[in-house]
Amino acid sequence: MKYSRMLIPTVKEVPAEAEIVSHQLMIRAGLIRKLASGTYTYLPVGQKILLKVIAIVRAEMNAAGAQEVTMPILQPMELWEKTGRNVVFKDIMCTFSDRHGRVNVLAPTAEEVVTALAAAEVSSYKQLPMNLYQIHDKFRDEFRPQYGVVRSREFLMKDAYSFDATVEGLNESYKAMYDAYGRVFRRCGLQYVSVQAESGGMGGTDTEEFMVPCSVGDTLVMSPDGRYAANIEKAAVDPVRRSDEAEAMAKSTGPVEEIHTPNVGSIDSVCRFLNTQPTEMIKTLIYSATFEDAVAAATSANPAAAPRTVIVACLVRGDHEVNENKVLHALGASSVELAGESAIVNVTGAAVGFAGPVGLAPRVGKLLIDHSVAAMGRSVSGANKSDHHIKNVVPERDFPLTGDNVLVADIRNAAEGDTWQGQPLTFSHGVEVGHVFKLGTKYSQQLGATFLDAEGKTKPCIMGCYGIGVNRIIAMAIEQPAGHDANGCIFPVSIAPFEVEIVPLNFEKAAVAEAANALYDTLKNQGVDVLLDDRNERPGVKFKDSDLLGIPLRVVVGEKGLANGQMELKRRTDEKATLVAMEEAVAEIKRILGEMWAKL
Amino acid sequence: MKYSRMLIPTVKEVPAEAEIVSHQLMIRAGLIRKLASGTYTYLPVGQKILLKVIAIVRAEMNAAGAQEVTMPILQPMELWEKTGRNVVFKDIMCTFSDRHGRVNVLAPTAEEVVTALAAAEVSSYKQLPMNLYQIHDKFRDEFRPQYGVVRSREFLMKDAYSFDATVEGLNESYKAMYDAYGRVFRRCGLQYVSVQAESGGMGGTDTEEFMVPCSVGDTLVMSPDGRYAANIEKAAVDPVRRSDEAEAMAKSTGPVEEIHTPNVGSIDSVCRFLNTQPTEMIKTLIYSATFEDAVAAATSANPAAAPRTVIVACLVRGDHEVNENKVLHALGASSVELAGESAIVNVTGAAVGFAGPVGLAPRVGKLLIDHSVAAMGRSVSGANKSDHHIKNVVPERDFPLTGDNVLVADIRNAAEGDTWQGQPLTFSHGVEVGHVFKLGTKYSQQLGATFLDAEGKTKPCIMGCYGIGVNRIIAMAIEQPAGHDANGCIFPVSIAPFEVEIVPLNFEKAAVAEAANALYDTLKNQGVDVLLDDRNERPGVKFKDSDLLGIPLRVVVGEKGLANGQMELKRRTDEKATLVAMEEAVAEIKRILGEMWAKL
Repeated sequence: MKYSRMLIPTVKEVPAEAEIVSHQLMIRAGLIRKLASGTYTYLPVGQKILLKVIAIVRAEMNAAGAQEVTMPILQPMELWEKTGRNVVFKDIMCTFSDRHGRVNVLAPTAEEVVTALAAAEVSSYKQLPMNLYQIHDKFRDEFRPQYGVVRSREFLMKDAYSFDATVEGLNESYKAMYDAYGRVFRRCGLQYVSVQAESGGMGGTDTEEFMVPCSVGDTLVMSPDGRYAANIEKAAVDPVRRSDEAEAMAKSTGPVEEIHTPNVGSIDSVCRFLNTQPTEMIKTLIYSATFEDAVAAATSANPAAAPRTVIVACLVRGDHEVNENKVLHALGASSVELAGESAIVNVTGAAVGFAGPVGLAPRVGKLLIDHSVAAMGRSVSGANKSDHHIKNVVPERDFPLTGDNVLVADIRNAAEGDTWQGQPLTFSHGVEVGHVFKLGTKYSQQLGATFLDAEGKTKPCIMGCYGIGVNRIIAMAIEQPAGHDANGCIFPVSIAPFEVEIVPLNFEKAAVAEAANALYDTLKNQGVDVLLDDRNERPGVKFKDSDLLGIPLRVVVGEKGLANGQMELKRRTDEKATLVAMEEAVAEIKRILGEMWAKL
Repeated sequence: MKYSRMLIPTVKEVPAEAEIVSHQLMIRAGLIRKLASGTYTYLPVGQKILLKVIAIVRAEMNAAGAQEVTMPILQPMELWEKTGRNVVFKDIMCTFSDRHGRVNVLAPTAEEVVTALAAAEVSSYKQLPMNLYQIHDKFRDEFRPQYGVVRSREFLMKDAYSFDATVEGLNESYKAMYDAYGRVFRRCGLQYVSVQAESGGMGGTDTEEFMVPCSVGDTLVMSPDGRYAANIEKAAVDPVRRSDEAEAMAKSTGPVEEIHTPNVGSIDSVCRFLNTQPTEMIKTLIYSATFEDAVAAATSANPAAAPRTVIVACLVRGDHEVNENKVLHALGASSVELAGESAIVNVTGAAVGFAGPVGLAPRVGKLLIDHSVAAMGRSVSGANKSDHHIKNVVPERDFPLTGDNVLVADIRNAAEGDTWQGQPLTFSHGVEVGHVFKLGTKYSQQLGATFLDAEGKTKPCIMGCYGIGVNRIIAMAIEQPAGHDANGCIFPVSIAPFEVEIVPLNFEKAAVAEAANALYDTLKNQGVDVLLDDRNERPGVKFKDSDLLGIPLRVVVGEKGLANGQMELKRRTDEKATLVAMEEAVAEIKRILGEMWAKL
């Protein structure tokens, strides 16, 4: 491609709207332009990268035995009502009524559509396993689109859905996708980690996220050797044991003492008022947990299976955060949410903000205590009395750690200082580029995607689903530490807009133009993806644009070099150029490219 | 690909919902499934065809110098309000308000978005010519989606937009796209015609449609040698001359005679009542035409340029239809529409349905007379008096054919018996698969897409736009006469789901499986796109599915043949199979495929 024939509107200034470096560089290098909040046009250079990423994703999905389809963007709302996910997705859904009054949902994901398809087309175990995928636009009405294409309202997703006859089959399908994802991200040059995750609104059991560490995004929890990695919703921690010091303190502490703490609400203000630390306080949160008979709920509207709601008090240390997913798992509940004000007042006998563990166990359905609370020697907590706290609260002495409705468990987010399996946990950030889920039979039961097994029995398909954020791959390839420097993008050769750029200095000189054109033609004919900067611009302008674009290898063709029969080669990551004899340039370029490809 | 690993849900029954053969076969061969009215999922076989079509379109666009981009599907309504096309598209637009109350339009086309992009990124003539294209979904809220993917609510369009500095440049860009379109459709194996068309709501001047003749769709008007082809909105006709017989009749006809025709409205009922023929009647239609100062209207809100409205009476023969585009061009007006009832009553002095030419010229802004009316010897018309007609109306004697506000012109649709440049016109049907437009400066002026020319003067970009219905290519490849027979699809090799299908009879026999697998592996390794029907199905089932799928070449591997060292080859279009020695099979298959490819 010749530079002058391509729309590459590079920008010097850092765009004010762009908070992170990948967003800034995608605009500055002319990859994208914003159309409206959370929507972007891919300009020719961005489009070229996008097509390379798509080709890699497609190749690995096909190699893993998945079959490509395209499902409509317009989805009937009725399907969402059948699974109840219209309630889960709610405000994030883009919907419109067509001229016949039917409500259309712009695909935020496609479990409903693909499961309805399987319900219609799959009838026998002989058709399984089946894995259908598409690379198609998705839409989410984000309240605050952010970070350019990382969180946009319209994005390209590779979404795959596996259907199996057995749990072992699902495990194989999941493994095949997990492995394919690793290959996709490696081939795209991403430094990724796969982390254990929570399945959240998707339902299902096992789920892992593929994340690219960078300075923004979700919290990533890892062991130093990298063997353990989880997102903050999932990360497990070793139970904190009661220290000797705490043990001694527990023994020496006097009886509980009620203190009047008017107008003192937050942990911080209580600490100031009582001259203590968040680490020496107990936070008591009142939840409402719902238990459903999962099988009955999924298969019928059996009134006997009506969900049961229970009030749960959760105790964590003042410096810790309750992790609702862990609460959910500790309880075996189907959902939990913070209790409303009236329920709190009813249970604690006090205004909101003064709940505490002493005397609470008999008044709640369940008392859930985090290990770190059980390990405390002495603490301060709410008094279950408005405007009052109590001090000298000793776990086990002043509230039970065992009992029918008492459970000590891991119910909080990991925090600095925690370990898992003895290793200290480290905390960093990252952005999700892929996600694999074992869904089980949630959707197939709701939408009737069943098959006859070898014995002629009707069974629901066992499903998995697997997503890749295609646009995010581009952003994260730039955002990752190796993906940029102060001068611009540094693309992996596999998804760079071009493999090689030829930069002729003084292209208006016949000798330079001739040599540059000859090299361009030769490389093109040999299948190298090459850009020739044929503009009549100053060398400084060309070099700046070249650095911005992040093409892995640059060839400089100048009068001086030509006089010596030489050209300059410079990897985007090199400090300095090296000289190569003109007659060896093509071979050397292909050797360097070969090296780059081999690393992926 | 092995048949058993691919979701190919073929269907025996003709689906009741499918009116045309391509829709029926796309369902029956398992290419698509309907999700909701006007939306379809492409199943693996359909998807494979779609990707082949996309690859051809992309290759030809790139070869023609167009640059690929992707513009968002979500478009801000504000852009549409700027060009006023929200009014033109109106009910056909899918729109929704996001959570911040902004109205989003689901791209029905992208002139506004691409022109706004050019307004932001193009500043100099040096950046021109520029042609940006995308292959992306479009949405239209059709009142009645029809013919499967031919008229759906969501479809894949290749839309390109050219920007030039000069009219000559536009002509070159247009020619490059026109030629590329021909190559696309030829490579896709379509028997197409390019026809002159009307630009309609797009604005602009020249425009041509690429249509595939078939039994449904728009009316196509052609000369027998195929040199002239136009759609019915555009098709020109030679003026009908007054015959000697008509001349004699005009001379011998007595004076006009008013007849009471109560409760007689339509042409047919008047004919019955007066015992005459539609060919001997004059239909008088009253239009309201609007004239704008085009330059003033496009560049400013100059009140002096307020549009002027004129009442126009159009006369056509009773068996003819007024062509509003021709009326528009004959008048040089910017728009025409049928006048409202009050205007008609006001002009004719009669109820609607009784307008006639006698005495009408002084009462209207313009009297437009079709050539075929001027050529009549004697006729019946409305009397400009409620419940009355007049007979013995002689053109020129009883109403003027010349005068300041009188014009005889071609203002009707071509009809059976018409000629153009002396050649008889033939009428058939076809479906549009591509459309090229010269847009001019309509959008660039409205949205400020200007550039500085070599002299430093600001000028609007001169635009063209070019569309291909990607899904329609598949439908029309099947719908065209050579694209199907009673047994199923007949695909051109370039867009067939596979080039070759291997059908082993009794795949459960080791010898058959071994020979079939060996052939499959060899062909695959040599880059042939091959399907192996590895199912344990009866030969009849396999043959029926194979015919349905329309793969161009079939290889049958059976025990009997193998015993003689032979396989059977059969083109989808062959009546009978031919035998080939096993050791020559690969070479013969590749030879036949080579022949097929060479024909495109």
